[in-house]
Amino acid sequence: MIVGTVYGVGVGPGDPGLLTVRAVEVLGKVDVVVAPTAGENKNSLALQIARPYVPPECVVITPELPMTDDQAALRGAWERTAELLAREARAGRNAAFITLGDPMLYSTWSYVATALATISPEVPLETVPGITAMAACAAYAGTPLAQGRDPLLVWPDAPPAEMAEVLRTVPNVVFMKAARHLERLAALTETTGSVAVAIRRVGQPSAAATADLRSWAGDSDYFTTVLMHRRDGDAAAASSASGKEGEDL
Amino acid sequence: MIVGTVYGVGVGPGDPGLLTVRAVEVLGKVDVVVAPTAGENKNSLALQIARPYVPPECVVITPELPMTDDQAALRGAWERTAELLAREARAGRNAAFITLGDPMLYSTWSYVATALATISPEVPLETVPGITAMAACAAYAGTPLAQGRDPLLVWPDAPPAEMAEVLRTVPNVVFMKAARHLERLAALTETTGSVAVAIRRVGQPSAAATADLRSWAGDSDYFTTVLMHRRDGDAAAASSASGKEGEDL
Repeated sequence: MIVGTVYGVGVGPGDPGLLTVRAVEVLGKVDVVVAPTAGENKNSLALQIARPYVPPECVVITPELPMTDDQAALRGAWERTAELLAREARAGRNAAFITLGDPMLYSTWSYVATALATISPEVPLETVPGITAMAACAAYAGTPLAQGRDPLLVWPDAPPAEMAEVLRTVPNVVFMKAARHLERLAALTETTGSVAVAIRRVGQPSAAATADLRSWAGDSDYFTTVLMHRRDGDAAAASSASGKEGEDL
Repeated sequence: MIVGTVYGVGVGPGDPGLLTVRAVEVLGKVDVVVAPTAGENKNSLALQIARPYVPPECVVITPELPMTDDQAALRGAWERTAELLAREARAGRNAAFITLGDPMLYSTWSYVATALATISPEVPLETVPGITAMAACAAYAGTPLAQGRDPLLVWPDAPPAEMAEVLRTVPNVVFMKAARHLERLAALTETTGSVAVAIRRVGQPSAAATADLRSWAGDSDYFTTVLMHRRDGDAAAASSASGKEGEDL
């Protein structure tokens, strides 16, 4: 009995052109694509991005992976998804679990893969890296994430009170899911002598960017990223000098 | 007179399969590919990775961009490369400047783009994101970079004395160009209760990974990355549980 392979495939942040050659190859050959959704009748943005590369004969399954802080509910959903993938693999079918961005950075894949390795250690796993939202945001805004020997901090949550202190050591910070914190982040740029740019829905037709964080403060777009640089950091200097791509900000 | 476009194209860390669809599209249509080398008669790894997608009629230029700390020498090299790109664009030719990994993360592209925007603000620039070495390392080692609400720190230099303190706040750290610091990083895992995995030459046929950092301490491979996780962090838990992909470590 041949066991199928389960792939964790990153589809990038929004533009189908940002899938890798390997991701396209995998999507073109698997029997099943598994695209999690946030709930019944909810769309999968990952599936929308991957769709051009999924052959018509491929089976598409959209299990529910709720957006919740309830750890027991999350764990249950990861395990059910892992069981679903294990069933496909044990039946000899190859399956791709697709995720936004990169499968190893703030993605459900790492939890599902762990559950799958526990349930069915005999199933071969392969992770196919994806373009991160922050890389696409930096390209879109014409602002480097970090340069030279300067560290980069990626912060996926609300900025804590000590963030001003952190910016003394680390001149470059990426804030993910930042929509609800734009007012605080604007204040943070002022107290720390930093510059920042907010980018939303990167890679989608409705993508936009602004250096005036407060102008978006009423908005609550889930896919909002803020790139912040201390003014004396290398990246901030490059960013303010490279007017070309920033003109539409 | 039509002005050509200059593209900054990320070719990922080593595997030609990790270029994006957009990168392949750009390489297939430009008139000139510019691939920096570290010196005369030195190879360009970026060019080696991109080669399958560069048509035979495309002109390939390999300017020298020295690996040095001499800021004046670096600045001169960036400006000469920017002038070269500006000449191509002004002559109506499209050019792609290719870089390892992502063009906005520790890449020469951000400096060259800044110089180019200063010299020739009329030249349209487009940055095409690339797969970062850290994403490919995480996929290869089966270790998430970060999960949930845990921040991630990317450190491109020698670990400073206060790194143990940093690990209290930030449970996930990626050390880039870590080959010369493996002994210190091994000691750091012990003092901070962390786990770590070192990966070298990811995406190349000679790729390898080890959880025993000291076993590579004599080695000095430029492309060595260390993923470190505090033991109580989510990513460390997932990493030690997902034995499947880590079996070959």
